[in-house]
Amino acid sequence: MPQPAVARRMERVASFLAMDVLSAAAAKERRGDSVIHMEVGQPSAAAPRAAREAAMAALEHGRIGYTEALGMAALRERIARHYRDTYGVSLSPERVVVTTGSSAGFVLAFLSLFDRGQRVAITAPGYPAYRNILEALDLEPVVIPLTRADGWIMTAAAVERAHAEKPLGGILAMSPANPSGTMIGREALRALGETCRRLGLWFVSDEIYHGLTYGEPATTALASDDDAVVINSFSKYYCMTGWRIGWIVVPERLVRPIERLAQNLYISPPYLSQVAALAAFDAVDELEAVKAHYARNRAMLLEELPRLGIADMHPVDGAFYIYADIARFTNDSIGFARRMLEEAGVAATPGLDFDPVEGSHYLRLSFAGSEADCREAVNRLKAWFGRAG
Amino acid sequence: MPQPAVARRMERVASFLAMDVLSAAAAKERRGDSVIHMEVGQPSAAAPRAAREAAMAALEHGRIGYTEALGMAALRERIARHYRDTYGVSLSPERVVVTTGSSAGFVLAFLSLFDRGQRVAITAPGYPAYRNILEALDLEPVVIPLTRADGWIMTAAAVERAHAEKPLGGILAMSPANPSGTMIGREALRALGETCRRLGLWFVSDEIYHGLTYGEPATTALASDDDAVVINSFSKYYCMTGWRIGWIVVPERLVRPIERLAQNLYISPPYLSQVAALAAFDAVDELEAVKAHYARNRAMLLEELPRLGIADMHPVDGAFYIYADIARFTNDSIGFARRMLEEAGVAATPGLDFDPVEGSHYLRLSFAGSEADCREAVNRLKAWFGRAG
Repeated sequence: MPQPAVARRMERVASFLAMDVLSAAAAKERRGDSVIHMEVGQPSAAAPRAAREAAMAALEHGRIGYTEALGMAALRERIARHYRDTYGVSLSPERVVVTTGSSAGFVLAFLSLFDRGQRVAITAPGYPAYRNILEALDLEPVVIPLTRADGWIMTAAAVERAHAEKPLGGILAMSPANPSGTMIGREALRALGETCRRLGLWFVSDEIYHGLTYGEPATTALASDDDAVVINSFSKYYCMTGWRIGWIVVPERLVRPIERLAQNLYISPPYLSQVAALAAFDAVDELEAVKAHYARNRAMLLEELPRLGIADMHPVDGAFYIYADIARFTNDSIGFARRMLEEAGVAATPGLDFDPVEGSHYLRLSFAGSEADCREAVNRLKAWFGRAG
Repeated sequence: MPQPAVARRMERVASFLAMDVLSAAAAKERRGDSVIHMEVGQPSAAAPRAAREAAMAALEHGRIGYTEALGMAALRERIARHYRDTYGVSLSPERVVVTTGSSAGFVLAFLSLFDRGQRVAITAPGYPAYRNILEALDLEPVVIPLTRADGWIMTAAAVERAHAEKPLGGILAMSPANPSGTMIGREALRALGETCRRLGLWFVSDEIYHGLTYGEPATTALASDDDAVVINSFSKYYCMTGWRIGWIVVPERLVRPIERLAQNLYISPPYLSQVAALAAFDAVDELEAVKAHYARNRAMLLEELPRLGIADMHPVDGAFYIYADIARFTNDSIGFARRMLEEAGVAATPGLDFDPVEGSHYLRLSFAGSEADCREAVNRLKAWFGRAG
């Protein structure tokens, strides 16, 4: 008898190459070799002390039960206040939905906004899970390639062209962006929102790297578009990846539909993570110190990498990545990353994770690691390029 | 300009009535009234001490980062050992996937097993999220009504009939079941597996209430069907609801597809919850004491409820619910539950949450609360029935 088959949709869901690099790096370490990790998209710093202490206090007090599906009221209120304090945007806490990481935010948003087969514009390069989550949910990712002429961001004009070709259901923009580090400025963000309103599209704004900017601060889509769906998380600025806790802000008419989805698909976000996240808002000094160390790593890399011939990179305005064009070295970013790991002991992510076309000659280097590691990576690369050259 | 619309799929995703009862109960408590909570499907006991201590130790050691998407290797190994120790089933840890609660287990299973439009058999009464998750993912729930003649379980014959009517993609069976408390015995489980194999259907077995049985221990579907997809969680027996941590066991050929889905949809399960879950396996004494208190609650209710005229209930073989036919009192279980909450101060869940048809004359009472609460609930109900009668 034939066994039942795996769903066909799985043919369209790719794995993260970054995860494969992670595995290869771990294997190398098990063999006793040293690896500098520039492939991982997570802070090396621990969660703020206040967050960890809040979790410990909750553990001492006993039961860690379900919370409301939309999250603890106190946390939803604190997040709403964050929008007032940080962006001058006034927001009812009712519109804040606490989620199990931004991962859950995407699933809740996509399922409540789009029906199967609807087209959603994303960018290349871009966060690979966008494409894969859309495919897993039978939605159609429409890739807008970023260009130097557009400043490597999704523009209103590009959205308009994509929609004219075949109607979109919505767009998903990210600023600061992974992997490119580029930011969508206030006016460009307003134009995206206006274009979406005019065309009747949903505007989903991924703001997970807010707080991690090295010049102008980031603008929330909500500042110019009250109907935007904003996705955020405690993973990046707040250094809380493994806690799996984030939030989304949605228009009033989405709150009840998303509550029903969240009840059924998640029941509630993790209790301890909610308690810890609430406390993390008060750890600004600690978090700004972490950001200052990213800034030092960034400055050092922007000085040193060009000396190695890695000079053609996207503007590194935010997040903690350098996305570098390595066309002068290779058109096989996977092979290049593999050799760099094996021979130099430096792990990085091949661009193909983020862009199935142009990614063949790009590399993403994360500078979220320690300063010592970052410096050591440069030394190893210098020696490697010396040997290789 | 018209605003973009909420996805049509949302019309098919219902809210939990249990959650509405929870809100009404909370409102009553805010008014200063006392409520005994028999509506909630979660243990009143805290997570085992060893689990909480393991989480505290991890908090002290610092960074709470992502883990592998399929979960920490040590936890996957420990879960595999659990199958050997508890059921005599030998299992490669590779086939164990740690999930963010059983909620994530369902999403990962459904998306990897079924393509849109495929039909999946579930039961009425049954856990309402089954129906709603299937609807949210554009799959079609096919409801098999449970009957007294079948012993209130999903039988192989009923599956065969449903499949003959219109082909199924798979079935989802639960034992011990929520809300009914009924169990599928070893032979009936084997027959379900054999029927699925013969018809080429996926067999998903929800075993979340394993460990909580009051006569015969539960049998895992894996004992007779190596190709079954088994879903489980630390929420019930292990008293870890708010931690959002569970697992699934899948056939070898599903491991990689599910890893890709998990990477994209969840990144990884919560770190602290994995550490705590690993320690929870060694807290058997504490957990058996909790179970003994459920058993005392159960015995007391089975003696007292018939005296109130609540005598027609499904067999309470496992889980911590009594699912009672209240047709002699009402055919409006929602109104009945509302009055019982308002007038008697006892919250319970109307059967319509679990069965849109027959649920109009059923009520689910959870005995996972404390013994004092359970006794007080009976006293309040006695007084209320006395007044009402």
